[in-house]
Amino acid sequence: MNICIIGTGLIGGSMALDIKSIYAEAVIYGIDVNEKNLNYALQLGIIDKKAKNEDLYSADLVIVALPVDIGLVIIPEILDTVGVETLVIDVGSTKLPICEAITNHKNRHNFMATHPIAGTEFSGPKAAIKGLFHGKTNIICEVEKTTFKLQERAMDLFKKLGMRIRYMDPKSHDKHIAYVSHLSHISSFMLGKTVIEKEKDERDIFDMAGSGFESTVRLAKSSPEMWTPIFKQNKKHIVKSLNEYITNLTNFKELLENDKFEEVFTEMQNTNRIKEILK
Amino acid sequence: MNICIIGTGLIGGSMALDIKSIYAEAVIYGIDVNEKNLNYALQLGIIDKKAKNEDLYSADLVIVALPVDIGLVIIPEILDTVGVETLVIDVGSTKLPICEAITNHKNRHNFMATHPIAGTEFSGPKAAIKGLFHGKTNIICEVEKTTFKLQERAMDLFKKLGMRIRYMDPKSHDKHIAYVSHLSHISSFMLGKTVIEKEKDERDIFDMAGSGFESTVRLAKSSPEMWTPIFKQNKKHIVKSLNEYITNLTNFKELLENDKFEEVFTEMQNTNRIKEILK
Repeated sequence: MNICIIGTGLIGGSMALDIKSIYAEAVIYGIDVNEKNLNYALQLGIIDKKAKNEDLYSADLVIVALPVDIGLVIIPEILDTVGVETLVIDVGSTKLPICEAITNHKNRHNFMATHPIAGTEFSGPKAAIKGLFHGKTNIICEVEKTTFKLQERAMDLFKKLGMRIRYMDPKSHDKHIAYVSHLSHISSFMLGKTVIEKEKDERDIFDMAGSGFESTVRLAKSSPEMWTPIFKQNKKHIVKSLNEYITNLTNFKELLENDKFEEVFTEMQNTNRIKEILK
Repeated sequence: MNICIIGTGLIGGSMALDIKSIYAEAVIYGIDVNEKNLNYALQLGIIDKKAKNEDLYSADLVIVALPVDIGLVIIPEILDTVGVETLVIDVGSTKLPICEAITNHKNRHNFMATHPIAGTEFSGPKAAIKGLFHGKTNIICEVEKTTFKLQERAMDLFKKLGMRIRYMDPKSHDKHIAYVSHLSHISSFMLGKTVIEKEKDERDIFDMAGSGFESTVRLAKSSPEMWTPIFKQNKKHIVKSLNEYITNLTNFKELLENDKFEEVFTEMQNTNRIKEILK
């Protein structure tokens, strides 16, 4: 079984690590524009070999784990050259642009659009960890457009990775993921920015930061290379979610300013429902 | 050694649990307006006995772990009746209002204003855990106003709990804690609210929520009973921090709307400094 990982970072690298323990016979080829990271991936045993272009043709599985803007350019090129039996899986955080970009590609049936909801705030091959996908959700878009035999190959992999599968159309995916993922990243980045700006001359202040601040600001450690193209591709839904978030913050601030503390209480009490919602 | 815990919730209860293992001879008395919680605290072995008012007089240590509005009323009353050798420690999240309220109290020297930066999003005696304070920061305000002998008693406790001590005036405490703690809670509550409102008819959407959303929204599970009076007492600094946060979010949104993605990238890259700041 020949597997090619394009982008040997956190997601691609973690998937490679799991694939090695799932498929004993797998040979993992790696591609990365960042030669240093590719060498790390080789040293860390994430990949077995650096891939040449012709390796794509003979691959059983190609996993594209790139920033979404680069994926949008590379995936059609990969589909131009893949073998008949090759499954190409994309794992990016936006789904409509890539689904639209290849909708009329002659090899559309070799492709599966997925979004494994898994990750950490770190990036690069050194951030790759085993078991990252276990118990996590994988969203698959337009599954009917992938050849049935290749669907089965993908499902075997996802099952063995321990993932739960959810099917969704790419438009709905992008709309909802703006709220439950992309907005969190912006709220966290801007919280980090606000506190850094305020406390730039008082480094000691961060001694006062507890686990609450750390957890709320964690996503502000995320990679700008990865997130800028996500925000660009999903701009419409993200701007809408940001408008709603800013309105809610402004209302809450006005309740404080006007001493409406019973309403402040009620706002928090209503939002406590998040306890039940998140299991 | 007689110790009285007033408010047997997350903070008071966790402190009681640690005190039991630190001071073998300690007898822990509990007071809580919530009779059900007080009984839980007794059943869970957090306290040894329910306290009567006269127990306060003979206590070596009284720990006040109440919502800050109630603390403001109760602490002066406690100081009215405590024994000469009693140390009263407050652990609330605001420090200026309580320091001002008792500044001229005849027993001010029996009192120490502290803020242990520790907690979880849960509350009540069932949320109490051992070791909660280990490795955490404890901020002490106006330490010079506490009798030296009682300072030593407090320091012995904090050292044995494993806490790092930082001294700060109450005004600075309240200003900075607005940024590194109180603001995070509001950003998290309003993120939770925004997503719940959007997705109220689509419960399945929360299947899409990953660890990023969970960590950013975690503080929205916090207790409104505890947080409303904190926001009330620290309103001035919190409103200021919220204004800055809303401005930063609005600027970021406008960068997206105007397709200024290089600046979006730079904003995130600059904020990535939070990695180095938080260790």
